[in-house]
Amino acid sequence: MKILIIGGKGTIGKRISEHLTRKHQVLIGGRSAGDVIVDIADSRSIQAMFESVAGLDAVVCAAGEAKWAPFDSMTEDDFTIGLRSKLMGQVNLVRIGQHYLNAGGSFTLTTGILADHPVRLTTSAALVNGGIHSLVKAASLELKNGLRINAVSSGLVEDAVDKYADYFPGHNPIPMSKVINAYVRSVEGHGTGEIIRIYDNC
Amino acid sequence: MKILIIGGKGTIGKRISEHLTRKHQVLIGGRSAGDVIVDIADSRSIQAMFESVAGLDAVVCAAGEAKWAPFDSMTEDDFTIGLRSKLMGQVNLVRIGQHYLNAGGSFTLTTGILADHPVRLTTSAALVNGGIHSLVKAASLELKNGLRINAVSSGLVEDAVDKYADYFPGHNPIPMSKVINAYVRSVEGHGTGEIIRIYDNC
Repeated sequence: MKILIIGGKGTIGKRISEHLTRKHQVLIGGRSAGDVIVDIADSRSIQAMFESVAGLDAVVCAAGEAKWAPFDSMTEDDFTIGLRSKLMGQVNLVRIGQHYLNAGGSFTLTTGILADHPVRLTTSAALVNGGIHSLVKAASLELKNGLRINAVSSGLVEDAVDKYADYFPGHNPIPMSKVINAYVRSVEGHGTGEIIRIYDNC
Repeated sequence: MKILIIGGKGTIGKRISEHLTRKHQVLIGGRSAGDVIVDIADSRSIQAMFESVAGLDAVVCAAGEAKWAPFDSMTEDDFTIGLRSKLMGQVNLVRIGQHYLNAGGSFTLTTGILADHPVRLTTSAALVNGGIHSLVKAASLELKNGLRINAVSSGLVEDAVDKYADYFPGHNPIPMSKVINAYVRSVEGHGTGEIIRIYDNC
């Protein structure tokens, strides 16, 4: 397969890239570095990306941001960051990409445990993740040419424990091997409309 | 209690209003008519509303729109309609309203079955509803002064069957009495962070 991994140099993306490269042709998409330069917060950039990369069988998105802050100090603009980037960025990847992917191709989006089990400071990130979960289910009813769409929703991943553990009291870290397998299941499997949850104690 | 019902003249809103009026002081908020004029798609309008109505114990939102259309023809602007209205409209009601409601007050938002069980044409509406579900859980972890937040997520309501039945093949209509009770449970009960689902055969 020819697979594009957006955010392929990030914490999760680089692990997926390393793994999928063994069996597939992998292209990395990133904002500042990679085989293809793309900013998912800008739909024109996404459109240009699909015009420049032909014959994709799978798009994996491990990119997108959302602001973390106390809810009583969040501004409307703070929410807009997540809406433009991780939410509409991923929606636009599928919305535009459905017209470019090879028949039978797949989209694998990235959400996270906050959709189902948020912690403090994450109103925006939770909202974005939950929105993508429902979008995945809805889009799977309509995608044509055998295109598939799934989301991977992981708990706190092992490689991010140092940075985020304090925000997730009592959460069991998710081994990177399990995270990678979730993406493999979406890309190499045949399911669609699935939210592949990798949670431990919830 | 002093309760503001936004969208209080709509299909669901008018039933809730009729019921809650028996025991409470109810104000209706609407875009063009009501005790208070408010457009939830405009956060300045929401701010002005809270400035003009003092001493609220509960805000119920039964307003907000999202575009229904085939996913392969949805534009970015089509998604923006739902993001501005039903999604950020309801987020902004809580984001701004948390600084105005009486201690112990509650927010009751409206989503719908599409969050969990979408049908075709509803990528945007599903996304909006799913986003609100996660926001409700996340915000409930942070609201102060005993403020509560819940969402009511109903299947196809009896009063909307004539208009929407064709879009929901095989869905059992939800009796309006059950819909009303979901809102009563949120407003008069003591739960928070709850998604009150009223689904029948799913």
